Amino acid sequence: MLHVVAPGEVLQLCASRFGGLSAGEETVSIFDAGGRVLFEDIVAQENIPGFDRSTVDGYAVRATDTFGCSAANPAQLRFKGAVLMGEGAGAAVGSGECAGVPTGGMLPEGADAVVMVEDTEDYGDGCRYILKPVSPGANLVLKGDEASPGKTVIPTGTVLLASHIGALAALGVSLVRVWAKPVAGILSTGNEIVPVDAPLSGAKVRDVNAHMLYRLAEVAGARPLPLGICSDGFETLSAAVETAAAKCELLLISGGSSAGEMDVTAKVIAALGEVHIHGIAAKPGKPTVIGEIAGKPVFGLPGHPVSAYFSFLNFVIPAIVSMAKTCAMPRTAPCVLGADIPSNHGREDYIPVRLSPPAQNGNLPEAMPVRLKSGLIALLGEADGYIVAGRDSEGLFKGEQVEMYPLL
Amino acid sequence: MLHVVAPGEVLQLCASRFGGLSAGEETVSIFDAGGRVLFEDIVAQENIPGFDRSTVDGYAVRATDTFGCSAANPAQLRFKGAVLMGEGAGAAVGSGECAGVPTGGMLPEGADAVVMVEDTEDYGDGCRYILKPVSPGANLVLKGDEASPGKTVIPTGTVLLASHIGALAALGVSLVRVWAKPVAGILSTGNEIVPVDAPLSGAKVRDVNAHMLYRLAEVAGARPLPLGICSDGFETLSAAVETAAAKCELLLISGGSSAGEMDVTAKVIAALGEVHIHGIAAKPGKPTVIGEIAGKPVFGLPGHPVSAYFSFLNFVIPAIVSMAKTCAMPRTAPCVLGADIPSNHGREDYIPVRLSPPAQNGNLPEAMPVRLKSGLIALLGEADGYIVAGRDSEGLFKGEQVEMYPLL
Repeated sequence: MLHVVAPGEVLQLCASRFGGLSAGEETVSIFDAGGRVLFEDIVAQENIPGFDRSTVDGYAVRATDTFGCSAANPAQLRFKGAVLMGEGAGAAVGSGECAGVPTGGMLPEGADAVVMVEDTEDYGDGCRYILKPVSPGANLVLKGDEASPGKTVIPTGTVLLASHIGALAALGVSLVRVWAKPVAGILSTGNEIVPVDAPLSGAKVRDVNAHMLYRLAEVAGARPLPLGICSDGFETLSAAVETAAAKCELLLISGGSSAGEMDVTAKVIAALGEVHIHGIAAKPGKPTVIGEIAGKPVFGLPGHPVSAYFSFLNFVIPAIVSMAKTCAMPRTAPCVLGADIPSNHGREDYIPVRLSPPAQNGNLPEAMPVRLKSGLIALLGEADGYIVAGRDSEGLFKGEQVEMYPLL
Repeated sequence: MLHVVAPGEVLQLCASRFGGLSAGEETVSIFDAGGRVLFEDIVAQENIPGFDRSTVDGYAVRATDTFGCSAANPAQLRFKGAVLMGEGAGAAVGSGECAGVPTGGMLPEGADAVVMVEDTEDYGDGCRYILKPVSPGANLVLKGDEASPGKTVIPTGTVLLASHIGALAALGVSLVRVWAKPVAGILSTGNEIVPVDAPLSGAKVRDVNAHMLYRLAEVAGARPLPLGICSDGFETLSAAVETAAAKCELLLISGGSSAGEMDVTAKVIAALGEVHIHGIAAKPGKPTVIGEIAGKPVFGLPGHPVSAYFSFLNFVIPAIVSMAKTCAMPRTAPCVLGADIPSNHGREDYIPVRLSPPAQNGNLPEAMPVRLKSGLIALLGEADGYIVAGRDSEGLFKGEQVEMYPLL
């Protein structure tokens, strides 16, 4: 028999046992850093930009020379030549002078503003006529506006978006230290399990879980490592699990997690390490084992794919997220139940639902439960998400507003 | 001067010019198929499961033999031995007989239900005593319940989730046809641009856009292809763009997209193909060129990283999503403005905001605008998302509820 524990307690226990774990750090190119979690503060070593820079095509001027000018009474400034893109700014701009400057070009010494080319006239007399006054600093990005030496531009722990990748490039950082993804070993057990491309005979079934867990582990932020199929039996599984645990940072074993004669996962984990949980008050997902071997989290997931799926979402993802230092929990969407859903007091129920668009604009979409037996992974593919009936709930009612969790 | 076009018209034009494009199909292992878009209907070739299967550990029986039994008056059934996991079911179960069967084991011929082991007694006399009646079909998944030959299990166009990967494995599909990701060539232009790890001198700046666009293209569903930095000048850029266009399915050129003397992107696209748009009524992102070369979409994005960022989100993502056949547009989150935001009538404004948690539970988070000049990519990293002020809006007001778009 399983000694079932409430989901909330399971998560607390996992947090206290596994909360301090990580897979350490690694250094990656910024081409590969998108979505990774920063292991270090990124601190500017220099001024960015490194020089005062025009944000428009126009003329660098001393702002005071333009004060009071207008289209009727333009300011006449002697043209000293043009700054070239990417080149130094050349000669200084003195009083009564101006210099052409392109967008992104360097502001010449002496100038303190840029007049847009649209606000000037060129009559071919070696001067430019300024039609609108500008304030000091107009149309400029100043040296150090983006970052100055010692400024923390991106703090450690940031999940790197494209905008951060751009900032890293701006700072001249081409390699970056990030938290390593924990390696999640995936081991399938069961005399009935054969590889997906092997012929079926007798009562054999294909290894669904290895593939499903591979993708789930990837989405959760781990580096999945397929470790094959192990037949039932304490000795065989013990040897396989011991070898597997050495190769990964957390281990997923699917099958054999119940309390039947052939279900030796819990015994194997107990022999090689410690079992913390065997049985969770959740459906699907009740026959789940959680323990550790050599300080590494080991999850014994149900052989039924749909049960393994929900056990993974509810209990493995928090562990991976914690180890990977991400914060990638899915966001829910509100919807309205389209049917009554019975639920058992004392356990959490996860109910796959399919959405239909709302009859009226502005209404929430309607969620209809997708009936599935826990072995039927193909039917889960027809769902848009799932809802949770809490352990104190005895059912959810048609018309009730609920939150749908996305499938992964 | 740019001839600006409204964002809505830009999207319509792109849809009509580029809507029929794709990068074709490719075949991938199901290990690599997560997140990809199915190019074919997945049709079952056989019954899944291939045999009637027990969902519990227990005894296979004829249900009629258990009718009327109870703990006080158990049904006595002769034990004919146990079905082994993954093996054929052996001898048939006749009237008055039962056979042990594990979870997932094959139901012997003659039996039509399984009694859970918890509802039986074994007194060691070669019989099993059934304490609770079962109905025909109890605790069984029947042959073909999941899929039968000819059934479309996953329709073409589905974005493959972990649950679909599981279903593919269940069906024996280890290779799958998916839409290929369009190759997005990324070319930076500008005499001032140097690679990220090159030393800076004069008024040079680092190639921020190539790295930022690489990640954005990846997130949008394309396969980014960095094509280096090209200096300004019509001849040089023409040659580079012609070579680049041959290597990709869509081309992103950053820099030179304005209407200044050195801005030759539009001229180059016009010479090698056709320019559809030059200038969009949007800020940031106004100096954007959209055209095509040899039937391939070409985007001339602004050199300012923040402008390039928003042009990509607004105009390049829809094109990539359409070519890749995904539907990955980001979901918005409601928030309340923490300050007035002025906006210009006649153009769409994109305003980066930073969220602060709501003062009271149940309230929406407060969004404060992050002030940034369009060159300052580092500051964009401080934002949590952005809001849109429509082209008919003359500003948004403190306390107004708005939708925040996520940064990518």
